[in-house]
Amino acid sequence: MKKLKRSSRLVEMTQYLLSRPHTLISLTAFADRYQSAKSSISEDLAIIKEVFEEEGIGELQTLAGAAGGVKYMPHMKESTALEIMEEVCLKLEQPDRVLPGGYLYMTDMLGQPELLADVGRMFATAFMGRRIDVIMTVETKGIPLAYATAACLNIPVVIVRRDNKVTEGSAVSINYVSGSNKRIQTMSLARRALKEESHVLIIDDFMKAGGTIQGMMDLLHEFKATVAGVGVFVESGEVELEERLLEDYVSLAKLTAVDMKTKQTKVVPGNYFKG
Amino acid sequence: MKKLKRSSRLVEMTQYLLSRPHTLISLTAFADRYQSAKSSISEDLAIIKEVFEEEGIGELQTLAGAAGGVKYMPHMKESTALEIMEEVCLKLEQPDRVLPGGYLYMTDMLGQPELLADVGRMFATAFMGRRIDVIMTVETKGIPLAYATAACLNIPVVIVRRDNKVTEGSAVSINYVSGSNKRIQTMSLARRALKEESHVLIIDDFMKAGGTIQGMMDLLHEFKATVAGVGVFVESGEVELEERLLEDYVSLAKLTAVDMKTKQTKVVPGNYFKG
Repeated sequence: MKKLKRSSRLVEMTQYLLSRPHTLISLTAFADRYQSAKSSISEDLAIIKEVFEEEGIGELQTLAGAAGGVKYMPHMKESTALEIMEEVCLKLEQPDRVLPGGYLYMTDMLGQPELLADVGRMFATAFMGRRIDVIMTVETKGIPLAYATAACLNIPVVIVRRDNKVTEGSAVSINYVSGSNKRIQTMSLARRALKEESHVLIIDDFMKAGGTIQGMMDLLHEFKATVAGVGVFVESGEVELEERLLEDYVSLAKLTAVDMKTKQTKVVPGNYFKG
Repeated sequence: MKKLKRSSRLVEMTQYLLSRPHTLISLTAFADRYQSAKSSISEDLAIIKEVFEEEGIGELQTLAGAAGGVKYMPHMKESTALEIMEEVCLKLEQPDRVLPGGYLYMTDMLGQPELLADVGRMFATAFMGRRIDVIMTVETKGIPLAYATAACLNIPVVIVRRDNKVTEGSAVSINYVSGSNKRIQTMSLARRALKEESHVLIIDDFMKAGGTIQGMMDLLHEFKATVAGVGVFVESGEVELEERLLEDYVSLAKLTAVDMKTKQTKVVPGNYFKG
């Protein structure tokens, strides 16, 4: 790269950091890239750090020493997250979204890249600091949420299949009971898809009693993996407490009431906002 | 937002633009946001534009006039794309990737957020300038590629289901013959998922004869939609010419030979690189 003026270097460094979240970049690498003294690079990083933190874009963690460098960690301010989710809740309350079984139609919203990027940033904020090697979800609707979160945390995604079509070598299958319709279903994951003893963050779009997520946890047990956390976009509060299969999860929104006759629903921000 | 110094403003403007691809931002909006004169904003944008274009990050399109403003369009240099795909081809040639039926195991690669971001940028570059309202894919493995592309183009994704479980209101289903195993299969899309007369970019992970993509095209016909383009990550050259169902597509890599006995494959960069 040709030597840049300071103003151009700031633009380039900003884009470089933003496109490499959770990646340690050494001062030496930056100094080489921009043919500049480390002292100038440090000054630039201080400016970037201040803007990122003031605007709530993310943290710029600097590590001192020979192995040191800088790492950008995407983040979202709680006030920004709440503003976004309050708008989401209003949209989710539109009466034409009520589906049989008390589900909500939200496929359209899960198709919007801007909202997904925001949601990924919220989950990345909620689980920042935990050891996470991989994100797991089950097909189909949780997939974009899992990838949006993975992009912020710079870790891979594995997708559990809802059948046991083994086209990818040996697989582990388990049966689980979906809490909502009480039917026994199968989910499976190829052996090669997940290293044993991984720390796994589970992400899904909707949770009622939690049967599907419990199924993923059982599957993880077969891989000797550790559950690093559970994040769901919307939880349903329309579940008896004794039916709820798990306690420790983060939800961004909560469906608190569904009237199937009038198609009226009530959706409020989830437990993410009670920390 | 408080008034920023020029260096901080450059950092903030860079991140603001990068997080809003294909979105027109007026000079007035920037001037208000940063409490600065339009002339200063224009100077800043000129610096950002130069860096983005020199580094091949993207184009910064400026539109003059009252409705004018600036729009960031992610882009990737052909040389960068080729470098990335040559590395991908080498990985795809690893012998343990050959699956029954001449398929390749690439789920692990489609789980990597960094590669997905690169691939999304390649497709965004290939189809830049076309009118595209929405991206379509069929579950499951094409989904991350579709979202990565959608994030660059700032348009929504619709996912076609491989069954006809109608849980989202009325749906359109079609039968199609998968070119590889000649079995009749079903795919369906909820009526509400796609507006009629949309311009649709089809994205998928793997194409052999093209039966699945032809199925999506038939489905689009039912929605009076127009196919704006077809992009596949890997195409298989292991198909007789007369079996190939479509001509007009963009592939990033091409599987040219599979020896099921030795598990040796040959993968080369796709027709993306012959434009």
